[in-house]
Amino acid sequence: EDCKKQVVSSDPYSSDPPRHPALRVNSQKPFNAEPPSLILSENYITPTAFFFKRNHLPVPKVDPAAYRLEIEGLPNGPVSLSLDELKTRFPKHTVTATLQCAGNRRSEMNRVKQVKGLDWGIAAISNATWAGARLRDVLLAAGYVPGGTVRHVQFEGLDKDVAGTTYGASIPLRKAVSEEGDVLLAYEMNGEELPADHGFPVRAVVPGTVGARNVKWLGKIVLSEEESSSHWQQNDYKGFSPCTDWDTVDFKSAPAIQELPVQSAITQPEEGSVVDRSLEEVTVKGYAWSGGGREVVRVDVSLDGGQTWQVAQLRGASEEGQEDAPSPPLGQAWAWKLWELTVPLPEDAQELEIVCKAVDNGYNMQPDSVAPIWNLRGVLSNAWHRVRVTVSED
Amino acid sequence: EDCKKQVVSSDPYSSDPPRHPALRVNSQKPFNAEPPSLILSENYITPTAFFFKRNHLPVPKVDPAAYRLEIEGLPNGPVSLSLDELKTRFPKHTVTATLQCAGNRRSEMNRVKQVKGLDWGIAAISNATWAGARLRDVLLAAGYVPGGTVRHVQFEGLDKDVAGTTYGASIPLRKAVSEEGDVLLAYEMNGEELPADHGFPVRAVVPGTVGARNVKWLGKIVLSEEESSSHWQQNDYKGFSPCTDWDTVDFKSAPAIQELPVQSAITQPEEGSVVDRSLEEVTVKGYAWSGGGREVVRVDVSLDGGQTWQVAQLRGASEEGQEDAPSPPLGQAWAWKLWELTVPLPEDAQELEIVCKAVDNGYNMQPDSVAPIWNLRGVLSNAWHRVRVTVSED
Ligand SMILES: [Mo]
Ligand SMILES: [Mo]
Repeated sequence: EDCKKQVVSSDPYSSDPPRHPALRVNSQKPFNAEPPSLILSENYITPTAFFFKRNHLPVPKVDPAAYRLEIEGLPNGPVSLSLDELKTRFPKHTVTATLQCAGNRRSEMNRVKQVKGLDWGIAAISNATWAGARLRDVLLAAGYVPGGTVRHVQFEGLDKDVAGTTYGASIPLRKAVSEEGDVLLAYEMNGEELPADHGFPVRAVVPGTVGARNVKWLGKIVLSEEESSSHWQQNDYKGFSPCTDWDTVDFKSAPAIQELPVQSAITQPEEGSVVDRSLEEVTVKGYAWSGGGREVVRVDVSLDGGQTWQVAQLRGASEEGQEDAPSPPLGQAWAWKLWELTVPLPEDAQELEIVCKAVDNGYNMQPDSVAPIWNLRGVLSNAWHRVRVTVSED
Repeated sequence: EDCKKQVVSSDPYSSDPPRHPALRVNSQKPFNAEPPSLILSENYITPTAFFFKRNHLPVPKVDPAAYRLEIEGLPNGPVSLSLDELKTRFPKHTVTATLQCAGNRRSEMNRVKQVKGLDWGIAAISNATWAGARLRDVLLAAGYVPGGTVRHVQFEGLDKDVAGTTYGASIPLRKAVSEEGDVLLAYEMNGEELPADHGFPVRAVVPGTVGARNVKWLGKIVLSEEESSSHWQQNDYKGFSPCTDWDTVDFKSAPAIQELPVQSAITQPEEGSVVDRSLEEVTVKGYAWSGGGREVVRVDVSLDGGQTWQVAQLRGASEEGQEDAPSPPLGQAWAWKLWELTVPLPEDAQELEIVCKAVDNGYNMQPDSVAPIWNLRGVLSNAWHRVRVTVSED
């Protein structure tokens, strides 16, 4: 009995929380999973239990009463805040923001040539309403003064590997302190306490920025001239040319991913499914999003592999019955758009190759094909999304 | 004699300035012309005489002593500034910024299907050093107060059509008054007085923003809740799906182009030229740029139509001997990068299809092909650029 207990407790993942059984698990330890993709387009706000989970390390068990957020690199010395101070000393700010893993849609790159990384489908992306203190407010209250030599804000998680190395990442100072950057030290997700898998008690939410910089279980903030020295900032989460392989890669030659490029995918119908000819029409649904606060302004859909196109209907926050949300201010479109299109089935088609591509308000377009953007880490997979379905005979 | 004089002076274009004979003219009246594309990659700063010219109307003759810049929509009433006041009352701010016409590379769309617009090649883009007063400084001095209902800054040119309609455009307020936006009321280009074709005596320079909003011969600035009501803001310079034609287009459905997507093109070798086999290698050169202050971080070059790629060398301001220019601050990369790559000639190749594609620091990529981004106005033509050359036999 004692022996068994010891074995269990020596597993650093033994205190990981329970998860919804419908999640598609890419890795158990650390836990990485995405929802069935249909869930995404059925809910403008992704239900918390289905929000994709991307953990790099075991989920740390944090006692909220003992929790401290340490802030270093300030002109008047370090500052330490309790959870209660974070909640009461700063206005609560609410932001609806989509997070996307750098590796979303990596499986499509794997089909071109094997890459290193979790084999994500199209659902390593989700949308939530986050609330917490604004990082800007906290840094100014902690004594940060604009105009110095600080260029980056580093985040350290409380999650550790067996050697004691914590997860870490950084964002540019400009994003961290901008009035329009909306960076949060979030303690709520969809109106409830942040769940263990999403960073309880406090995580960084950096709208418009790749998931990897939205550090969970946030323990320390460091203002610095340099980016985070972590593996994930320096030697991972960067994009390279398709000609770069593991023998030739120079991680210093590429910038750490921050903003992500325009993205879209088809959630319905699913690959390989059968469309009923007698219905005479087909409804295509999906999501679209762009990084850096750029708003998706159009999604084109093709049923013939990209030869001809039609324009889908976009469904933003207001169309989705979110508290009569107006169009987001320019540069602050942090949340995705869901989209759909119902079209007559082409008369003779026995198969359809459904394709989508989105355009953002910088008029950035998605690239047509996967191979030319293939990269050894399988990140930034945002080529047109393609789904093949068959049409049933009458 | 008198009669002849009258005929000449009734031509509204009769006071247009002389132009360099090497410019490739797309339209004489109004004057629209681009330099030979080789000029672009040979000069980090495009020589003023070769900077592309995109006029919508006749060049107005402006007396600098009588010039007034009117500013309207201010809380304390309109303000009027002389040229001398603009030069002496505000600090002179210098910005190196690339301007690109929305229609650059339109000829490639024309090859897919006819579009409406001037048939630009790849050289409706150029780079210059501009100096003038910061729009932000002028607006604040004129009594603008942040926080009101103003959302757009409208520019009106002094250039008019026969009915008296002036050229006009607007930019978002946020860009106009941002400390990092670097919007200029420019009176100098490359260290000299602004030439007549580029807006003498004052033009707007809106770095990172499509040429059409960089209004020349600036006569009036209006702060407003609305965008400019001009044809060029409302019913032109917008992007649409390839399925949208002139019968179905709804100009209200698309945003006015402001930022432009990532772009690159090959200036050397030229289409149809012959590469000498005995040289054993070929040098490929070009330019790359992205809108919104995003920095180009990589250019991939292919000699085999996009099957395999190599990474080109980037040449930014510092490499080009510009006053030891450091890397631009994040979000303020207004100027292009020139790039080049020297590679061995593939042994068996009799023809090369040279292709380039650029990546910016939002990891936006260029789309692979033209047809899927074709649009009725032929704007935003930023697919991979392709040049076919033959290899001479030994
Ligand atoms: Mo990620
Ligand atoms: Mo233009």
